[in-house]
Amino acid sequence: MTEGVQYGVLPIEALRSQDGLSVLKAIIAGQLPQAPISETLGFSILEAEPERVVFAGTPLPRHYNPFGAVHAGFAATLLDSAVFCSIVTTFAAGESGTTLELKLNLVRPISKETGLVRAEGRVIYRGRTMATAEGQLRDKSGKLYAHASTTCMIFQPKS
Amino acid sequence: MTEGVQYGVLPIEALRSQDGLSVLKAIIAGQLPQAPISETLGFSILEAEPERVVFAGTPLPRHYNPFGAVHAGFAATLLDSAVFCSIVTTFAAGESGTTLELKLNLVRPISKETGLVRAEGRVIYRGRTMATAEGQLRDKSGKLYAHASTTCMIFQPKS
Amino acid sequence: MTEGVQYGVLPIEALRSQDGLSVLKAIIAGQLPQAPISETLGFSILEAEPERVVFAGTPLPRHYNPFGAVHAGFAATLLDSAVFCSIVTTFAAGESGTTLELKLNLVRPISKETGLVRAEGRVIYRGRTMATAEGQLRDKSGKLYAHASTTCMIFQPKS
Amino acid sequence: MTEGVQYGVLPIEALRSQDGLSVLKAIIAGQLPQAPISETLGFSILEAEPERVVFAGTPLPRHYNPFGAVHAGFAATLLDSAVFCSIVTTFAAGESGTTLELKLNLVRPISKETGLVRAEGRVIYRGRTMATAEGQLRDKSGKLYAHASTTCMIFQPKS
Repeated sequence: MTEGVQYGVLPIEALRSQDGLSVLKAIIAGQLPQAPISETLGFSILEAEPERVVFAGTPLPRHYNPFGAVHAGFAATLLDSAVFCSIVTTFAAGESGTTLELKLNLVRPISKETGLVRAEGRVIYRGRTMATAEGQLRDKSGKLYAHASTTCMIFQPKS
Repeated sequence: MTEGVQYGVLPIEALRSQDGLSVLKAIIAGQLPQAPISETLGFSILEAEPERVVFAGTPLPRHYNPFGAVHAGFAATLLDSAVFCSIVTTFAAGESGTTLELKLNLVRPISKETGLVRAEGRVIYRGRTMATAEGQLRDKSGKLYAHASTTCMIFQPKS
Repeated sequence: MTEGVQYGVLPIEALRSQDGLSVLKAIIAGQLPQAPISETLGFSILEAEPERVVFAGTPLPRHYNPFGAVHAGFAATLLDSAVFCSIVTTFAAGESGTTLELKLNLVRPISKETGLVRAEGRVIYRGRTMATAEGQLRDKSGKLYAHASTTCMIFQPKS
Repeated sequence: MTEGVQYGVLPIEALRSQDGLSVLKAIIAGQLPQAPISETLGFSILEAEPERVVFAGTPLPRHYNPFGAVHAGFAATLLDSAVFCSIVTTFAAGESGTTLELKLNLVRPISKETGLVRAEGRVIYRGRTMATAEGQLRDKSGKLYAHASTTCMIFQPKS
């Protein structure tokens, strides 16, 4: 979508040899590819620091549901990315995880007039085998459109 | 995406003059457009009857997250469509609704080898101002990949 | 609460030597104690079969919130018991589990006029390390008051 | 439970003539009764300010599930109270609300050794007809045991 940006699945070696925060920072720096879904839906990761990440995207006509607003799947995709990747920032090299559940609240309709929205995810709890995180989707003025929480299972590296 | 299929937002007149089930059946019959998000993510509505609808789509490489599986947003989008539209089937002409929340459980990873998946939504409760629904995402063999529940607010037609 | 019923925590030996369904059936038969919370809130387990259990209780004045209806915690407690124990029915001897999350929908107010309510829980998905279940809370006529879904983590017996 | 504390449902006049925050402060001051469920389960409201309330209770043997830990219903009841009442603090006189859904995450087991736990609820979004809130359950040292989010419907006073 954006010129020069690479899209693709991360090489397994990167996930085995680097911790999660380094991987996310390498994606932001363009040294590792953005996710294919990022190209399809038009969003990207902007920031990553310990226990916190930000994704952003711009709602467009092609994100609409039949009823005249942006489909809830757009907010779901950005917020799932944000909350899951906030947990990824806590992964040591070789650790991995999977989303067990995501709960999404939609508090205002999103339209093509909304402009760029940022999905910020933050870790709530990080255990050895389970983690939870929360996220908010806001426009540039800080107005809230959606928020979410997630539960993820953590897998230790196979030794 | 599919030849001859129209994508777009529904005309307001259709939503004012027809009940929800008729609108969904007209989309299936190609007399009203499919949602723009359906073209963007590659899925469509297949079936609609009172209190039950089915959407379907095929997971592709362009739906992938960075970690080698289909992004949770794909299941979220199909299941949100299914559970919300199951409630739409209960709308009299002029009634409308909005999703307050969606909770999604992911029980198996989805990949491009999964093939066509069907998201079936069913109404659990329909009140005057609020409704709830549930849905499951399964492959052709009936294997479960994800399930969801939703809470929607209902708006009566303005008289 | 009920004459002759024993309340207490299950002996660890019972959980190690018997499968989950046998344990629940022994509670129903009065051979093992009911949970202490069952005495405190006034509810009990009625039925257990593979992947399905039923709890029941009668809403009373002492379950009320300040606003003139039964507190959501009453439905939460019965439904959490039902959905978690539906998963317990799948446990081999020595397997155990813990609830990661519970989502509860409240669709009608519960009052002391509601009479006995039954919380039925059913397994949706049972994997090796994770399971999900759903439940409904209904009165004697089948009217729905609340429904829930849960995600649980499963622990294998230590060998 | 506590000497001199009154338990009961709030008089309708109080809810019609006072805003929500004043009602909660009057409960804390002992001028209005605590909820009956507070006596049954052993918890109470401690603090109320705009968009934020705190409830507290002490886990006891009578809160146990059969499996040797405090039942999830205990955390559900305290957190539901906290998140709902944080929204109550935003009610003008005559406004009322009802919980549509509560999602509860349990991140650590609660036992009788945990000691007093505080459930703090905060408003996330307050609209005219809908509000959302979140809450955390922590012990005296600040350790997190559970967290929750809720969606409530708001009713305007009948004119």
